[in-house]
Amino acid sequence: METIGVGLIGSGFMGKAHALAWNSVGPVFGDVPRIGLAHLGDASDELARRKADEFGFDRASGDWRRVIEDPNVDVVSITTPNKFHLEMAQAALAAGKHVWCEKPMAPNLADAEMMLAAARASGKVAVLGYNYIQNPLIRHIRRLLDEGVIGEVNHVRIEMDEDFMADPEAPFQQRHEAANGWGALDDFGVHPLSFIVTLFGEVSKVMCDMAKPYPTRRTPEGDRDVEVHDLVTILLRLNNGASGFIACSRTAWGRKGRIALQIFGAKGSITYDQERMNEFQLYVTSDRETEQGFRTILSAPQHAPYDRFIPAPGHGLGFNDLKTIECRQLIGRILGQDSVGITFEQGILIERTVAAAGASFLEGRWVDIA
Amino acid sequence: METIGVGLIGSGFMGKAHALAWNSVGPVFGDVPRIGLAHLGDASDELARRKADEFGFDRASGDWRRVIEDPNVDVVSITTPNKFHLEMAQAALAAGKHVWCEKPMAPNLADAEMMLAAARASGKVAVLGYNYIQNPLIRHIRRLLDEGVIGEVNHVRIEMDEDFMADPEAPFQQRHEAANGWGALDDFGVHPLSFIVTLFGEVSKVMCDMAKPYPTRRTPEGDRDVEVHDLVTILLRLNNGASGFIACSRTAWGRKGRIALQIFGAKGSITYDQERMNEFQLYVTSDRETEQGFRTILSAPQHAPYDRFIPAPGHGLGFNDLKTIECRQLIGRILGQDSVGITFEQGILIERTVAAAGASFLEGRWVDIA
Amino acid sequence: METIGVGLIGSGFMGKAHALAWNSVGPVFGDVPRIGLAHLGDASDELARRKADEFGFDRASGDWRRVIEDPNVDVVSITTPNKFHLEMAQAALAAGKHVWCEKPMAPNLADAEMMLAAARASGKVAVLGYNYIQNPLIRHIRRLLDEGVIGEVNHVRIEMDEDFMADPEAPFQQRHEAANGWGALDDFGVHPLSFIVTLFGEVSKVMCDMAKPYPTRRTPEGDRDVEVHDLVTILLRLNNGASGFIACSRTAWGRKGRIALQIFGAKGSITYDQERMNEFQLYVTSDRETEQGFRTILSAPQHAPYDRFIPAPGHGLGFNDLKTIECRQLIGRILGQDSVGITFEQGILIERTVAAAGASFLEGRWVDIA
Amino acid sequence: METIGVGLIGSGFMGKAHALAWNSVGPVFGDVPRIGLAHLGDASDELARRKADEFGFDRASGDWRRVIEDPNVDVVSITTPNKFHLEMAQAALAAGKHVWCEKPMAPNLADAEMMLAAARASGKVAVLGYNYIQNPLIRHIRRLLDEGVIGEVNHVRIEMDEDFMADPEAPFQQRHEAANGWGALDDFGVHPLSFIVTLFGEVSKVMCDMAKPYPTRRTPEGDRDVEVHDLVTILLRLNNGASGFIACSRTAWGRKGRIALQIFGAKGSITYDQERMNEFQLYVTSDRETEQGFRTILSAPQHAPYDRFIPAPGHGLGFNDLKTIECRQLIGRILGQDSVGITFEQGILIERTVAAAGASFLEGRWVDIA
Repeated sequence: METIGVGLIGSGFMGKAHALAWNSVGPVFGDVPRIGLAHLGDASDELARRKADEFGFDRASGDWRRVIEDPNVDVVSITTPNKFHLEMAQAALAAGKHVWCEKPMAPNLADAEMMLAAARASGKVAVLGYNYIQNPLIRHIRRLLDEGVIGEVNHVRIEMDEDFMADPEAPFQQRHEAANGWGALDDFGVHPLSFIVTLFGEVSKVMCDMAKPYPTRRTPEGDRDVEVHDLVTILLRLNNGASGFIACSRTAWGRKGRIALQIFGAKGSITYDQERMNEFQLYVTSDRETEQGFRTILSAPQHAPYDRFIPAPGHGLGFNDLKTIECRQLIGRILGQDSVGITFEQGILIERTVAAAGASFLEGRWVDIA
Repeated sequence: METIGVGLIGSGFMGKAHALAWNSVGPVFGDVPRIGLAHLGDASDELARRKADEFGFDRASGDWRRVIEDPNVDVVSITTPNKFHLEMAQAALAAGKHVWCEKPMAPNLADAEMMLAAARASGKVAVLGYNYIQNPLIRHIRRLLDEGVIGEVNHVRIEMDEDFMADPEAPFQQRHEAANGWGALDDFGVHPLSFIVTLFGEVSKVMCDMAKPYPTRRTPEGDRDVEVHDLVTILLRLNNGASGFIACSRTAWGRKGRIALQIFGAKGSITYDQERMNEFQLYVTSDRETEQGFRTILSAPQHAPYDRFIPAPGHGLGFNDLKTIECRQLIGRILGQDSVGITFEQGILIERTVAAAGASFLEGRWVDIA
Repeated sequence: METIGVGLIGSGFMGKAHALAWNSVGPVFGDVPRIGLAHLGDASDELARRKADEFGFDRASGDWRRVIEDPNVDVVSITTPNKFHLEMAQAALAAGKHVWCEKPMAPNLADAEMMLAAARASGKVAVLGYNYIQNPLIRHIRRLLDEGVIGEVNHVRIEMDEDFMADPEAPFQQRHEAANGWGALDDFGVHPLSFIVTLFGEVSKVMCDMAKPYPTRRTPEGDRDVEVHDLVTILLRLNNGASGFIACSRTAWGRKGRIALQIFGAKGSITYDQERMNEFQLYVTSDRETEQGFRTILSAPQHAPYDRFIPAPGHGLGFNDLKTIECRQLIGRILGQDSVGITFEQGILIERTVAAAGASFLEGRWVDIA
Repeated sequence: METIGVGLIGSGFMGKAHALAWNSVGPVFGDVPRIGLAHLGDASDELARRKADEFGFDRASGDWRRVIEDPNVDVVSITTPNKFHLEMAQAALAAGKHVWCEKPMAPNLADAEMMLAAARASGKVAVLGYNYIQNPLIRHIRRLLDEGVIGEVNHVRIEMDEDFMADPEAPFQQRHEAANGWGALDDFGVHPLSFIVTLFGEVSKVMCDMAKPYPTRRTPEGDRDVEVHDLVTILLRLNNGASGFIACSRTAWGRKGRIALQIFGAKGSITYDQERMNEFQLYVTSDRETEQGFRTILSAPQHAPYDRFIPAPGHGLGFNDLKTIECRQLIGRILGQDSVGITFEQGILIERTVAAAGASFLEGRWVDIA
């Protein structure tokens, strides 16, 4: 494969992140085919053209189907709102293109299952944009868990908190409508679940609570009921019997990009916080008793593929670099290399857990994951 | 009241903490009656005598009833295992003594209710040893909440974690037997609940999960089932509608005395961790947007009664100082002054919540607090 | 200017950083001319060709003069060892090219002065690769200082520490020879000085100490004297009268990329550490006295140009992103826009301070900066 | 020795700290003679009587000589301003009493040397109130250094910063007069020097800089020149050849009790900050390379004598507890036990270094310690 032709649908937050990754993946890794930025699609010809120029894409269309049809396109980045994911992924896969689709898969489990079916039928690579797990430190944590450095894991806590919904004076938005899903559960909860899938495996059952910090928000016509829940907490059991929970808030003043992991094992513990994504903490009982303590370990070239970005330790990767790593993994998968990432096969595990959590909340009881 | 005569039953971890507090409260505060260390009781005459000498008590007895009967004793510190609390508290109150009893009240709710009844009948001061809430910073957080500095609180998370049960190789102990209670729920959970009672008020309902990281432990005769749960997580609702949870672990390697609070309001957030008990964090939206961030605020003389210990800020109180403050509050209550602390009246709220959590765990559903 | 043609000399640590920046600057900022990656030069044709392919450059040469002569090249990135900077910068400027040269300017002050002369004579843009100061947070700190948020600055401390020379068992290397300069002074010291030039202005006098943690290192022929100093501390006065110091170590085990600033003013303080480059701390006396504390402020879209990389706060930039910002500033300067960065005019202030510090060390006394 | 009779001169910040220590040392340690609080002296009979009652002393005098003469007094705590230290220490030692004198020894070196001479002549125990070094963690750091855990130490940095002089609007005080000494050098610098004496040994030479952040302060009669320096930085060499510096500020907004140590060795590093006195950081190269990082080690019973205060790890000592430990060490020395602490013999090393630093500042050159 001499060139990988890229189609990009959407040019917002995640669209730009994909564009940056496609621009950087070659020079950063130096071991990939030439990347051809073939075709960018967005809501209008004009917008698409402007963004294509900014991001370095050759062609531009106001109709996303043109991107998928483009014979120069081998892989399609889907970065539109999740209600469009099913249709676009189905079309791209049917057209024989690989798919890199942003998370979550779809607004409901049925759609997600259809996306999985389409991926299976196509035989193409179909992966999801769970970038946080691509942090070299997260991969290193996985390695430490596999090596048994902290022994068998028996308890896991993950919190994901931001504050963009924290202002009670902010007006009612479209995303406060139930049509957009559960709220924090599917918007945020899927990220902690991507860590669980990556580090520990499957969730076996959940007990879910949700809450609305601000039950109503103002509109020009008066207050309106908020239909989604900005707070969610999910008690859970993993397949191996370990217990734990996930807690998410979109109304946590002061939290900007917190994803805090606490992993407890029989011989040690590991903690991590996405807001300080270039470090993690490790406690091991093999240290001498009088000097046991959490080590703060900075990301370094020994934590591949940090070395592809910077040859010196402790200098720091950024959020966008994670997307570049994810992109390299996608390319690896296309090339048949061992790769890390959440495929549609694994993504469906996340979606099923979300669906079970939603049911659990409605019924006030534990729900098994099918 | 010229002198307060003190009786102390028990001289272990908490017994010594009480003794240190009774020794220090006078010189630290300088505004209390003379403290007379009258009588120390412990399991044997010999042990009691030795500890009385160490701690500066005049008399010593191997029979705790002698302490209670002693006419020089006005207040009795009860620091024995909680299965003895009921009998001792009843006897002391019946004898017209004030009672300062370590937490939790009793191994079961029925006993705790009887202790409350005894306290009510006696008209004497009856308080519990919840020392963490006596931190001047916790009192200051209460002040900030009352002032509305972070707006109305809508979500609370409290974790309490230590690792003294974390070693899977440690043998079966008596405390692994069901007769000792639930495990983390009553051993640890009461502390987070003491924060809730102090800062926010009452819990209205709970959904509780428990887990055993190590279901069996070895004995000389082979492995034996562990009957208590070292892990507990409690989803909860407060009376004001706020949501939250409490999570406790006695098997969290690396955590030594962690009690981590996260309090989220409509205008800001507050966090605190007992392992760094001389600081707390405050985020307020009233700061200019480009410089909003969590402030790390060090304990200082402005946070009364820190000033009674040290006239300079940031120099640090210790765990035992909290007991001295608690002691001063107890004395204040005896003298009819406004006082902070968990009386039997408030302690019963904690015990009822524990009982409801236990029921919730057994039934796998939300349980209302009566 | 429709296209900016780029020549890159060198493809090591900094060469790759420049290449990544030139690849990303367009898609990140979206407001620059098209970037033409014209010509990459390195030590051999083969190496140059391979790196040109990796980094996306059109042409490649084993002779750096071909890069400078290339009519498609408008600006030359010089990332070779600093002993080559003078010759390359002179040639590039003489050929009418803009120059982006890595720090420090040259191994000695005389060469640096000649570089400045060449830049002045050419009328071209000539800037240095001081990337740390391009952090949006550093720019924001500059803004806060200008606004007087912490009052007049009276004391500054900057430490820069890494540990790549910390192993006493590591063998003698070429960089331990005096021909490579002072050691920590010119290798590291220039970075703290770039912060001083950016944030506070000029240094008026210095008193410098240097030390060798390991005076000898092994060679195959036996131990050899280390001729450079891995430790340097510089007491200093700024033109405004403020005092302070710079301390650098290349042998500080555990420090990986630490550049720790402490800035003290009449109304507050600011601290920063490059190892946590997405946050800084601010203490202001205008906060209410009982809640004064250092705020930890996370980088956010309000801290331009963070917003060009990520629209959400607290998600984190990386080391390479700073180079992309530096690149954008260079382009701005070429386009006649207001720009931030260390030009040769400012760089010479740094070099003169380094020279004065060297003299101070040799003479054991304070030395004024000319 | 059945009872140790205590005399206390002064009842301010440090006087109360001594009183609390004398009250607590028995119950905390349980292995000391009975402590008899015999006699408290202060500026007036009335004040002395009031404080004696608060602190539990039997007798009280408005004349400190009565304390020293009291036959029930075996040891005298001197906590008055340092200009009185010489006279009081001489008198107490001449009267055959042991002396526990607050730091620094005296306003000038000559007085300090006379105090040492008096101590030598008396044969009595004469120790200084350097409490920070009594932290169990500092003792543990000493142990680690002795064991070679971080290899030979080659560089040390110590900062001590507070902000009680940071407000430029605060009026001129008596302590701004030159008669009170150098300023930060003798007020603060002696504490970092006490760490050096305790952990590393002697300073061989110094190069000192001082600065005045606010050269004048207001009085009712107009501005007046400040005669002391609130900022001091001391470059230094230790006897073993290691380099380092001490930096102190009394005008560092936001610093409340910071004493930050950074100790660098051939095999690792140690850091510590008094503002978080219950933890220190250790980096060792013996950890596996991919998981090397600074461990945050919490104080615990394994760090004697923490265990005498609390049997559980991570619960936290306070500032006053350090004084209690210091008191126990003083008693140990009286009883002929191995003891930690700064005697007059070691204190003079600190005073000589202060004098050399003062001379260095005046002369702008390095000064050897005699």
